[in-house]
Amino acid sequence: MAKITLKSKATLVEKVRVEVEARNHKVTIDEPIRLGGTDLGMNPLELLLSSLGACQTIMAQSYAEKMGVKYQHLQVELEGDLDTDGYQGKPGAQVGLEEIRYTIYIESDEPQEKLESFIKHIETYCPAFDTLVNPTKVVQKEIIVKQPAK
Amino acid sequence: MAKITLKSKATLVEKVRVEVEARNHKVTIDEPIRLGGTDLGMNPLELLLSSLGACQTIMAQSYAEKMGVKYQHLQVELEGDLDTDGYQGKPGAQVGLEEIRYTIYIESDEPQEKLESFIKHIETYCPAFDTLVNPTKVVQKEIIVKQPAK
Repeated sequence: MAKITLKSKATLVEKVRVEVEARNHKVTIDEPIRLGGTDLGMNPLELLLSSLGACQTIMAQSYAEKMGVKYQHLQVELEGDLDTDGYQGKPGAQVGLEEIRYTIYIESDEPQEKLESFIKHIETYCPAFDTLVNPTKVVQKEIIVKQPAK
Repeated sequence: MAKITLKSKATLVEKVRVEVEARNHKVTIDEPIRLGGTDLGMNPLELLLSSLGACQTIMAQSYAEKMGVKYQHLQVELEGDLDTDGYQGKPGAQVGLEEIRYTIYIESDEPQEKLESFIKHIETYCPAFDTLVNPTKVVQKEIIVKQPAK
């Protein structure tokens, strides 16, 4: 067992603009103008879908050689359904994404069957995929309150 | 019921570097050099944690006024445990994140109890949080294979 701990930090900048940081990397997250943002970045759920797509793509790259699969181009398109009544607190509405769908575009000479079995393998061993399809424990450690300077 | 569909696209650029896109926004995802990447961006799981942190922060901003909560500064720190044996296909290892933990840093004059109830509310209505703690259906629509140009 080789356990690692990944870390990230989200800091409110202004309005609904947030800077997220992991190690030496920063990304700006925002909401479109019609939702009160300044549209300087993806919104959090677009980022969630992007995380899944990036994970699938990277897993494909990691397994391609081992599985003898060659391709010239690889792209994953993702979509996720959200009932906007949910986060607004309306009773009976699902808060989280209801379904995520993805399409893989692959430029390759390999037979369809081999590609399908390759993609199946990626699905099975993709950490973001597994985190989403299974319930994940999310624990609040602490709320640390600081008094503002007077 | 007000359903919307969010979209994203992940394109392999080189090695394990991926460009993710949603609407007019692009982010570079990569792996550290020791994992075969060029470290030009967060990795997918750091992005997943960032998505949750950004969602919690934006939900806080959206609900603060309605709930009469004032603060000067807001930050969420997140960490997630991964057994790296999982994505390498070793039997018995969990593939996805085993646990996500978060700490909220808030600079505010509000009483601790009010802040705790505010954060509880955010947890309940945060779409990324809800997507992670519950099992989410992830469906493969299609694998579209294109023959490479000869």
